[in-house]
Parts: sequence; structure tokens; C-alpha cells
Amino acid sequence: MQSELRVPPRILLGPGPTIANPRVLKAMTTPMLGYLDNDFVKVMDETVDMLRQVYGTNNTLTFPISGTGTAGMEAALTNIIEPDDAVIVGINGYFGGRIADIAERCGAVVTSVNAEWGQIIEPEQIANACKKVTPKLVAVVHGETSTGILQPLEDIIEIAHDNGALFLADCVTSLGGQPVELDKRGIDIAYSCTQKCLAGPPGLSPISFSDQAVEVIQNRKSKIQSFYLNATLLAEYWMGDTRKYHHTLSMTLVYALHEALRIVIEEGESARYQRHERNARALIAGAKAIGLQPAAAENYRAPMLTTLRIPEGIDDVTVRKRLIQDYNIEIGGGLGIFAGKAWRIGLMGDAANEQNVLLVLNAIEKLLIELGYNVDSGTAVSAAATVYQN
Amino acid sequence: MQSELRVPPRILLGPGPTIANPRVLKAMTTPMLGYLDNDFVKVMDETVDMLRQVYGTNNTLTFPISGTGTAGMEAALTNIIEPDDAVIVGINGYFGGRIADIAERCGAVVTSVNAEWGQIIEPEQIANACKKVTPKLVAVVHGETSTGILQPLEDIIEIAHDNGALFLADCVTSLGGQPVELDKRGIDIAYSCTQKCLAGPPGLSPISFSDQAVEVIQNRKSKIQSFYLNATLLAEYWMGDTRKYHHTLSMTLVYALHEALRIVIEEGESARYQRHERNARALIAGAKAIGLQPAAAENYRAPMLTTLRIPEGIDDVTVRKRLIQDYNIEIGGGLGIFAGKAWRIGLMGDAANEQNVLLVLNAIEKLLIELGYNVDSGTAVSAAATVYQN
Repeated sequence: MQSELRVPPRILLGPGPTIANPRVLKAMTTPMLGYLDNDFVKVMDETVDMLRQVYGTNNTLTFPISGTGTAGMEAALTNIIEPDDAVIVGINGYFGGRIADIAERCGAVVTSVNAEWGQIIEPEQIANACKKVTPKLVAVVHGETSTGILQPLEDIIEIAHDNGALFLADCVTSLGGQPVELDKRGIDIAYSCTQKCLAGPPGLSPISFSDQAVEVIQNRKSKIQSFYLNATLLAEYWMGDTRKYHHTLSMTLVYALHEALRIVIEEGESARYQRHERNARALIAGAKAIGLQPAAAENYRAPMLTTLRIPEGIDDVTVRKRLIQDYNIEIGGGLGIFAGKAWRIGLMGDAANEQNVLLVLNAIEKLLIELGYNVDSGTAVSAAATVYQN
Repeated sequence: MQSELRVPPRILLGPGPTIANPRVLKAMTTPMLGYLDNDFVKVMDETVDMLRQVYGTNNTLTFPISGTGTAGMEAALTNIIEPDDAVIVGINGYFGGRIADIAERCGAVVTSVNAEWGQIIEPEQIANACKKVTPKLVAVVHGETSTGILQPLEDIIEIAHDNGALFLADCVTSLGGQPVELDKRGIDIAYSCTQKCLAGPPGLSPISFSDQAVEVIQNRKSKIQSFYLNATLLAEYWMGDTRKYHHTLSMTLVYALHEALRIVIEEGESARYQRHERNARALIAGAKAIGLQPAAAENYRAPMLTTLRIPEGIDDVTVRKRLIQDYNIEIGGGLGIFAGKAWRIGLMGDAANEQNVLLVLNAIEKLLIELGYNVDSGTAVSAAATVYQN
């Protein structure tokens, strides 16, 4: 017989999940309702309304996919792509690579546009790729969780549209922490998750399709290879005049998302984005003061996810293990080519606050000193504090 | 600004979700952990152990898919099926039809074996189909939520195996409410959900693959078309020696499943199955006493989901609306060809109890009398009570 759950109260400062807001946890104790109960449909409608607000869109087809961010990625691609479609994917980190992988599984002929990890995809690279193929879709990652890059989108969107392509942005890490502004920017397809800057539990992937994207889906010649992620069928359930059963939505996760979005809107999107920026500035100031260099190019750093190069002679796993054991703090290790080379410190949602910044800087500094690193005690926290005083 | 969630405390006696056990709701307030945190990996391992016990299997590849029952269905099919594979699907209700649909989206050439709704698939039908095609897979629904049939499996499994095929059972409705016994019966692939007889929230789909099924997956010639549902990659995360990141699991839903399984095991599987049977007997006795006839063939009724034919002259929607408005009770309407013709009364998980049986019978009887139905008040409850006295 397994015993009752007892989990340590971790301070989650990794790439996600972040600490869920206590109001969100409480919302999850709300009793179940039938998936077609009028009272539940009202919760669904309110959730979609708030999602549209935070996404900055009037797109009708906006709702959460019943799966995690990767399910949203797959939903975006499987609905749009037909066999042999040309797709251009910007790859400057782990998740760009994942988009390319899934696009190929959907039958796409993928043209990869590569940049070094920690650098942005340059618009010219996309423009050059468009000279070689006529893309149906151009896809890039807005906030690359593996590198900490926040990709500028405007120029690439213009190039995609000028070449008759739809534009997709992976907003898994950015939504709720930085403006995504689908309509203003002209993003045709976006998906995200609930456990990062929305500060909810993982399990849903908010997605949005522009009218142009919907038209492409409606004019498909081949069947969509997924039933579960089929946007046309899902639309009949989420926003059809007669709500048609598709699958049994997780009421619990919708309750959670409903509360998480209420909290975002209460704080105010702009205030929330500034809070994320300010705390990232303080974190980076503190890190740099003890010689830890950001791995993402300056001016293009995603405030919710800071990558720091691990100093020579310091063992990645030793530090992260000690952070857990001695301080109950989780930070992320590097993915892919950054494994062992960079740490990923997430300041997402509620966790983007002064207390956590000072806590994690102090803990890392102390561990580095213990491991023989030569720096004066208090340097990091002191540098970070300066940012908060301004 | 949307206001805080307020939902009515429904008594959920439909096809699922059922009422979640309060201990499960409480478990969902457990704080998040990182998806590779050792403490979380321990919760994952314990959950898998308990799943194996309830499934009656030693299958290594047993874990919950991060999606609802339909995601589990799609995961089962997309991992096994390659283009042009012959698949035999038993269709005697809505969900058999869904299996066929998804199998075709995976590229299968489907041979449908049809039976009337409310009847079982006869083993001879499968045997005959095996004379026409050499199936890679034979698939049937164990508990057909649309009709209330509990399909006998043993003979069909033997036929499938004799013909060199894998056998798949949809256990969405049966798991936790009736024995599924994968190993004893020789079921190669099974999937279920969490919001029916396990009495949790929706959102996960426990799945299990036999070693033979795993071998088929490993020997595929074509790539699995889904990344999200890819069992090979998921196995590396769920049970690999080095737990390799695949997607961010919903800790919350795993916590819920962990607690739900603990409750099943505490009660004892056998006691739980008998409880489901006893309450279904009482429900049917009460229903028959007021002339409501089960729509599923005798001796093959799934105790967790009873379908009752709606009497001539009684409007389906009127009764179900009044049940909600006056009694806060949800029962299910008919799906597909049963729409408007049958009600679906679920007694699943905790909800399979005497109180609910008497409550729903009394409410339906009162409404029918109000609508002009000729029966003495108290007839249904009295007939049901007799069952409990024995």
C-alpha cells in the first residue's frame, strides 16, 4: 500500500512548472461538472474570453488544447500541415528542433533556418529561405526555453506574409510574462502552456488560430491525422452553437486556467510584464557581479527564463543537487548542447519576485564559494539589490 | 473582469465525469514539483505500480498518457498501426466507431464488425472477419459507454491471438469498476480514463502495452506520426534508467491519480467491483418496476453505466433538464442513434452507492408521474430497496 502524498515545498525556479498560485490550487478543489453542463459551458466561455484578452486577439478559434505545451505544438502543426507542404522552421534551440520534428511527422518538407543557441533567428535568414521554397508556414519560437532568447517577431512575420505563408509563434514560455499580441503583430497560430508565466498546473495548452489559419484548415484536401487534436471538431465543442461532445474536458484544469487568467488580468498585463523584466534585470545584475555570464544575446533575453553559463571547473549537477538539498530550490540544467554548460533560472508568474531573486543568488554564490570560487560573500545580492533600489 | 468560480454541487450520475472523491480533490492542492525532481519521480513510480495492480498486469509499459481517454485511444492506435495495416474493429456503439475513425487516420485498413447497439460483438463475427483479412490488431470496447454493454473478451482474445493479431480493449469505462485483468486475459493494449470508476478528475489516460505490443512498436518500419503520444519516447521518461524529458507532466493530475488509485486499493478491487454490481442491480430493479427497460442485452450489462429506454411520449430533454433544475442530478442523454431514445445512468466510483440509486429513481419517478406517466408513487424505490435487503 502506497502512503499519502508528501512532497517537499520546493521553490521552483527552473524552466517550468513554476510555483502554482495558491488561488489556482484552491480552484482545483471545485467539484466536477458534466462536460455539457450549462454551468460548465459558462466557465469555458469565460476562460476563452480571458484567453483572448491575454493573447491580444479577437480570434474565434481560441481555446485550451487538452494536453501540455507539446500537445499544443502538435495540434498547431497537425491541423495546418498536409503531406508535402513546405514549412520553414527557425531553429536556435531545443524547441525549434521539436517543431521541425513534429512538422515532419505531419508530412511537411521542412527547411530549417539555424542560428547558434543563444542567438536570435535573423529576418534575412527567413527571407533567404523563402527564396528557395514557397512556404505554407513559417514557424519560430517566441521564448526559447532552452536558451532564454526572446525572438523579435515583427520582421519575420512581414516576410512570412509577403511570401503568402502563415506565421506560427511558439508562446509556451512567453504568454503571461511578455506581450504576445497576436492581432497587432499578425501571428496566425500560437500555442502556450499553463505552468509557466500563467502560474497554473501543467496540463492545458492555450491555442489560437487566426481566420486565415482557420481558412487553411477548412480547405484541407487530406484528413487531419489526429482526432484528439482536431481543431475543427474541437471548435464544435468549444464554440459551436450546439456544443458537440468531442472528449471529456478536464474541468479541474479549466477551473485552474480560469483562476490563473483572472489573476493575470487583476494584476494587469502591462504591470505583470514589467515585473518579469525588473526581476530578470536584478537576477542578471547579481549573476554578472559574480562572473556568471548570460548565455543569451544581449537585448534579446527572455525575462522569464535566464540562462547562465556555468563557470569553468564548476560541476553542474553538484550545484543543482545542493540547491535542492540545502535550499529546496530547483533551477534547470541545460537542454541539448547546453547540457552541463548552462543553468536555466526561471522567474515565471508569481515566482518572478525580489525574494526569489535574492534567495537564488545568495544560494548559488554560497555554493560557488564552497566549491572554491573566488568571490566576496554578498556580491551577488548586493548587485541585485541595486536594481530594486532604482 | 470575470468573477470567482461558483459551481452548483451536482450529483453526477451520467457517463462521466463522476463526482471526484474529496481526498482526490485535496491531493490536487499539493504543490508543484519539477518534472524530473526525485520526489516527483517517486510519485510517478508509485502511480505506475498501483496502475499495474488495478490493471492486473506486469506490463512494464504501463503509465498515464497526458490527455483524456480519447488521447489514450489515439496513443494506443498511433503507436501500433502503420500505413495499410489491417485492423478489425468491433462496432456496437459510439466508441467502437471512434476507434475505427482514429485507426483510419493512422493509415489502417479497417474491417468493421458491427452489432446492434445494446448487443455484444459475437466471437464468431470476429472469427469470420479473420478469414477475410489477416489483422495486425483486433480492437473492441470493453465497457461501451454509449450502450451500457460489458463485452465478454476471452473468446475474442483467443481468436485474435490464433490469427497472429494483437488484442486491444478500450477500458475507459470499465477500469476500477469491473475486473480488466490484462495479463490473465491476454489483453495486449488497454487504455482508460481517470474520471469514471477511478473517481478522479478527467485529464489522464492510463495505458498499458504487453511485451508483444512493445515488440511490434519497436519493429515499426515507419515513424510514429505523433510525437506527443509516442510510447517509445514516453517510456524513456516514465521508466527509463535516465529519465529523459519528453513533456511537462501535469503533477496535479498525477497527484490526483495517485490518490484515486490508493482509494481503489484500500477498498479492495473485488469489493469495489461487487459494489458496482450491487448498485446496478438495484437501479435496474427500480427502473424495471416503473417500466423503464434496459437498452443493453441481459447478462452483458456494464454495472457502472446503465442505459434505459425512454418511454414513448416522454421527452428526453425535458426530464434531464428538470433533473438538473429540481434535483441537481445529472444523467446522460443518448449518444448517436440512442440520442433521444435512451438515458445513460452512471454509477461510477464513489457515486455507486445506495443513496444515489434511491435518489435518482425517486426523482425520475416523480418527474414521470408529473409528465402523466401512470405509476404508483414509491414503486421504483421500493423495488430497489428489496435488492439492498438481500
